[in-house]
Amino acid sequence: MPGPLKLSELCRILNEVGLPAQIEGADCAVRAVNTLEAAGDSDITFLSNPKYTNFIASTKASAIIAKDGVETPSSLSVIRCRDPYGAITMVIVHLHGHRKHPKWGASRAGAFIDPTATIGEEANIAPGVTVAANVVIGKRCTLYPGCYIARGARLGDDCVLFPNVVIYEECELGNRVTIHAGSVIGEDGLGYAPQGEKWIKIPQVGRAVIGDDVEIGANCTIDRATLGTTEIGAGTKFGNVIVIGHGTKIGPDCMFVGLVGVAGSVTVGKHVTMAGQVGVAGHLEIGDGASVGAQSGIVGNVPAKATLLGSPAIPMDSAKRSMVLVQRLPEWANRVRELERELQELREQIGANGKA
Amino acid sequence: MPGPLKLSELCRILNEVGLPAQIEGADCAVRAVNTLEAAGDSDITFLSNPKYTNFIASTKASAIIAKDGVETPSSLSVIRCRDPYGAITMVIVHLHGHRKHPKWGASRAGAFIDPTATIGEEANIAPGVTVAANVVIGKRCTLYPGCYIARGARLGDDCVLFPNVVIYEECELGNRVTIHAGSVIGEDGLGYAPQGEKWIKIPQVGRAVIGDDVEIGANCTIDRATLGTTEIGAGTKFGNVIVIGHGTKIGPDCMFVGLVGVAGSVTVGKHVTMAGQVGVAGHLEIGDGASVGAQSGIVGNVPAKATLLGSPAIPMDSAKRSMVLVQRLPEWANRVRELERELQELREQIGANGKA
Amino acid sequence: MPGPLKLSELCRILNEVGLPAQIEGADCAVRAVNTLEAAGDSDITFLSNPKYTNFIASTKASAIIAKDGVETPSSLSVIRCRDPYGAITMVIVHLHGHRKHPKWGASRAGAFIDPTATIGEEANIAPGVTVAANVVIGKRCTLYPGCYIARGARLGDDCVLFPNVVIYEECELGNRVTIHAGSVIGEDGLGYAPQGEKWIKIPQVGRAVIGDDVEIGANCTIDRATLGTTEIGAGTKFGNVIVIGHGTKIGPDCMFVGLVGVAGSVTVGKHVTMAGQVGVAGHLEIGDGASVGAQSGIVGNVPAKATLLGSPAIPMDSAKRSMVLVQRLPEWANRVRELERELQELREQIGANGKA
Repeated sequence: MPGPLKLSELCRILNEVGLPAQIEGADCAVRAVNTLEAAGDSDITFLSNPKYTNFIASTKASAIIAKDGVETPSSLSVIRCRDPYGAITMVIVHLHGHRKHPKWGASRAGAFIDPTATIGEEANIAPGVTVAANVVIGKRCTLYPGCYIARGARLGDDCVLFPNVVIYEECELGNRVTIHAGSVIGEDGLGYAPQGEKWIKIPQVGRAVIGDDVEIGANCTIDRATLGTTEIGAGTKFGNVIVIGHGTKIGPDCMFVGLVGVAGSVTVGKHVTMAGQVGVAGHLEIGDGASVGAQSGIVGNVPAKATLLGSPAIPMDSAKRSMVLVQRLPEWANRVRELERELQELREQIGANGKA
Repeated sequence: MPGPLKLSELCRILNEVGLPAQIEGADCAVRAVNTLEAAGDSDITFLSNPKYTNFIASTKASAIIAKDGVETPSSLSVIRCRDPYGAITMVIVHLHGHRKHPKWGASRAGAFIDPTATIGEEANIAPGVTVAANVVIGKRCTLYPGCYIARGARLGDDCVLFPNVVIYEECELGNRVTIHAGSVIGEDGLGYAPQGEKWIKIPQVGRAVIGDDVEIGANCTIDRATLGTTEIGAGTKFGNVIVIGHGTKIGPDCMFVGLVGVAGSVTVGKHVTMAGQVGVAGHLEIGDGASVGAQSGIVGNVPAKATLLGSPAIPMDSAKRSMVLVQRLPEWANRVRELERELQELREQIGANGKA
Repeated sequence: MPGPLKLSELCRILNEVGLPAQIEGADCAVRAVNTLEAAGDSDITFLSNPKYTNFIASTKASAIIAKDGVETPSSLSVIRCRDPYGAITMVIVHLHGHRKHPKWGASRAGAFIDPTATIGEEANIAPGVTVAANVVIGKRCTLYPGCYIARGARLGDDCVLFPNVVIYEECELGNRVTIHAGSVIGEDGLGYAPQGEKWIKIPQVGRAVIGDDVEIGANCTIDRATLGTTEIGAGTKFGNVIVIGHGTKIGPDCMFVGLVGVAGSVTVGKHVTMAGQVGVAGHLEIGDGASVGAQSGIVGNVPAKATLLGSPAIPMDSAKRSMVLVQRLPEWANRVRELERELQELREQIGANGKA
């Protein structure tokens, strides 16, 4: 851990990265970042989600990052900043640093590396890794135990594969790709031709290509294409247990939360966000900047910047109105029954009137 | 297998653990437990779910555990007990026993154990396990092949990690924790600060803490916290492919069925049950004893003992009424159309009357 | 790759397997199969999904497989066939072949094989595989690194287990079973007896049995039975992250898309298809040939050949009608409000009339 820093030093760093910040109160030194509730002496904390405002009064932190206007006790030093979440990110980086991986050394004892593989300088390969024929591993890659890199796969520089990640043959990772434990890249998709009630296997001769700076959570599965490529665009971030079908192309800078499933041959634009457990049917197009609420089911093309919800998904405002009405259906049913009753009464009254 | 036991012996065991039981019919010896359909001679079976009552007449078992009042053929010996499910559990334990793990011996040949790790007495570590620096493994733990225990992680006594389980750095398991194959504890969550359309990685410096007697299914993923801890309370049981977000705290004695996803910073009370494919949005609180039906989506705080269903989830009774009404919407739409027609008729008639 | 073939040769092959086909245009040689968009010179492509018809004009392929009546540019040689999808499958098989697995040789160096295990002829076992006591591995099986085959498990002939597949004790695989990376067969299900708020573990003494010609995707989990067997029928194909509960029996020739969850003690017939993220509650029966739409939740028995959708699932036609009506609920609510207003007006008018 890089050790304690003074608030003035942190402000200097924040200003440098384009996050203007000023100290309010004493310029103390802080050692670590922590939550409002868990922070102690010489910790710095932050308020980003207003939900947690009432924890400020009782926090034991020495300093806090907050927006202008947020009230703080006089005992707390404050860094004022318009983007507390962005600011605390930088502070975590500077106070705690990124993960340090073990160094398994150059001997590669215990790893099974095919002699035809090309391993970049300073690649850090653990015991229990298997690297198959004709694989290319970039410089400074870190491969944890249990990873399997199949024939002809290529990893760029500075990739990190956590334990038990499997890369199927011919798949390709860009630079600085991080894949968490247990994820699988390039397995065969559900490619079968029906013959009566039997399913005839279609060899899945395509591959999967993962762009630069992609981070993939744990236990995800990304099919190889039947033909051509499945693609995950540069800078895209996946949560855990994301399932991507064969031939699907996800654009750059997307973010998918856990348990999202996208069927095959889907094209997703850039900077699309999908919340947890969303499902997307096959052969669709999702426009740039679209945003999909949790548990939604996408069954048609989605225009750019659309915000959808529901299964089947529709524009979020409409979906929310419908969801409220669904919950009130018993009341609406009663109103319809009442109308029927009143109309009947009226009809009888008029019949009477008519007679009269 | 501990071998055959007489029904009188089983009754003695059941009475001892607080499950009063009496024999009806001959005191035969039984060798194994089986289902009503599959049981054969010298097997003992049980009726717990009334759905299977009609299989009693044709079962080939020698004995059955059933409640008072359940009719059984005279050829069957019966153990009468108010809680047949609890009783058969004890009988399975005594007739079949719990799983016996392989014994890999003290040599630890083929395992990669860092010299700074502390390994408890009688720990049973398979070839192909990696134990990193400063790890502490408790007494009598069993680690199957392919497990990876990262730097500084701590396991209590009597833990069982099935093959390919990954514990990230600094995470902590209590005593008697069982984790099934392929599950991952303490991977980074989806922690990024948006900067324009880019996502800036927030180092995930917290950890995950798993309580005593927790059992976790296969291929689950439990994020480490960004700051502080993700927690799974003592005695909680998870099915397969459960996804828990960073900083979420699950209380003790909960039960989650497969494919449940809980976002980050959620607080779940004690003895909460979630059925399959439930999703919970971030930053919520779920009260003690709450129960959530399959495929529900929780989007607000949940009071203690609430029973919810639907996406978005509402109290189960209301949700069921709404679901029935949704299925009958075509009929309700027709009733509204009919009202419109009749009202129009009536209006014309009155217009006519008016004229008249 | 088996190398280039002439279209006339491909037609001969197609006719032989019962897919009548004729050439239209020049009998050129083709080297590879590719999509309409990505195909280049000496590639053969196909049109199966009419959605892609407009790509035909611009494809750079040398040949195409298409139905009668599909218009194609004169520059393209055409194979006419009633089933282009089935035909291209055969063409991929003949031009590209199925995956070639690495050959790890007979020495089995680096694998941990118990001396009591029986290994079939020409079994291909990678370093880093563990085969426990009393396991039987059939002829010509391929086991990739990181697989774990527990005590007493049995694999038929010609099985392929990709990296990090785990087979728990006593489970059984038929012939020609393929399991993709990270899947787990036979882990314990959620078997606990409640005792107050505690959960008492029920030893899961059953097992899982996988039929001939089953293919299972990546990171699936198939519970062993509490008693008896969990079964996956011959010829059934699973996508990724399928979760099958204990004691469930899936029939032959089914197809389940990704993220499907089936609870315990369910019986599924033959040739049942379930789309992505479907959930099935416990103890149900799903009839032969049933088909379930994406994200559906099955909560009751399903008759043979039923086509269902929704959560809870109902016949697909009704579900679609209800879904459309749900989306239009704001409009229907307005119509009910309007009826109430008009009825009130009418009542006042009649009251006035009455007075008059």
